Amino acid sequence: MTEKAKSIEAVIVNGINATEYEQIVENVREDPSLAKFQFRATNVWRLGESNRTTITGFYGAGEEQGYDERRFVVDASEPEVLLGKDEAPNPVEYLLHSLTACLTSAIVYKAAARGIKIETLESTLEGDLDARAFLELSDEERKGYQNIRVTFKVRSDATIEELQEMAEFSPVLDVVRNGTPVRLRIETV
Amino acid sequence: MTEKAKSIEAVIVNGINATEYEQIVENVREDPSLAKFQFRATNVWRLGESNRTTITGFYGAGEEQGYDERRFVVDASEPEVLLGKDEAPNPVEYLLHSLTACLTSAIVYKAAARGIKIETLESTLEGDLDARAFLELSDEERKGYQNIRVTFKVRSDATIEELQEMAEFSPVLDVVRNGTPVRLRIETV
Repeated sequence: MTEKAKSIEAVIVNGINATEYEQIVENVREDPSLAKFQFRATNVWRLGESNRTTITGFYGAGEEQGYDERRFVVDASEPEVLLGKDEAPNPVEYLLHSLTACLTSAIVYKAAARGIKIETLESTLEGDLDARAFLELSDEERKGYQNIRVTFKVRSDATIEELQEMAEFSPVLDVVRNGTPVRLRIETV
Repeated sequence: MTEKAKSIEAVIVNGINATEYEQIVENVREDPSLAKFQFRATNVWRLGESNRTTITGFYGAGEEQGYDERRFVVDASEPEVLLGKDEAPNPVEYLLHSLTACLTSAIVYKAAARGIKIETLESTLEGDLDARAFLELSDEERKGYQNIRVTFKVRSDATIEELQEMAEFSPVLDVVRNGTPVRLRIETV
């Protein structure tokens, strides 16, 4: 099949190429190693609360991807009441972003694969955190978020139950709900 | 004490006002409710893999903060092999950013509070993910990261053990390692 014939036949749902999605499923079914991904980031501390992450290549779909041409820079800061200059979101706000961006894409991709059209999709998040553990004033509170609440408003052909089931495929939701082992290694230079 | 006298006396370590940090600790010791924070985010799906988070106000230090004047916009995308246009990091890459930005700040703030000078601090992260669960090809793999490895290179007066102990105060490390309850509510409109 020529490239032209392929593009004519491609089914696009929610802006996602559902034909290519189905092809990926078939490719991974034949060769499960294609499903292995390794994502990466590097971070450099600047001063005070300010630090900068650079994101370039990753491994996936059987090979190194985008190492030379791909480069994103993301800054983190803290608001003034947390002794920062408030130049960017703070790390726990980025966690909320990561979570809802992932939930959103899980719904959009799964719906595309199933031929379900999404019209609009918006979300709001709240995360509760008590700083006493960080400040070493309490052993009873945890350091991280105690609870996170996500509310989606969706206009689509799907039922609430279908939307819920599709959102549950989110990789970040799995990490945030269930935890992931983190190996933390520190070298002095 | 006048504002001027305060600023003359402030001890700045690693770009952090250690005098203000100590004042926050004392304030929270007297009134633990000042340690309660609620961070927030809203996200709007754009098309395909593209969605946009807006971060404005939060609650903390006893009152609403920054709602009118504070506004950050963060985009999420996906690379081409994941059917996107690669216009921004993807959600699982933002999770690595959130984690390492938080670990970095935990070290820098705790060191400042203890009078330990940090000269340089850099980190690299790798996260392993298998897409088979998302593609509904396997029940044996989890959806999220299987493992995350963080390597810090630090030039400072601190020992590796001190740096490790300070990093463990990171709120995002706690969430990623141990998980946090997420209440996911979906409304159709």
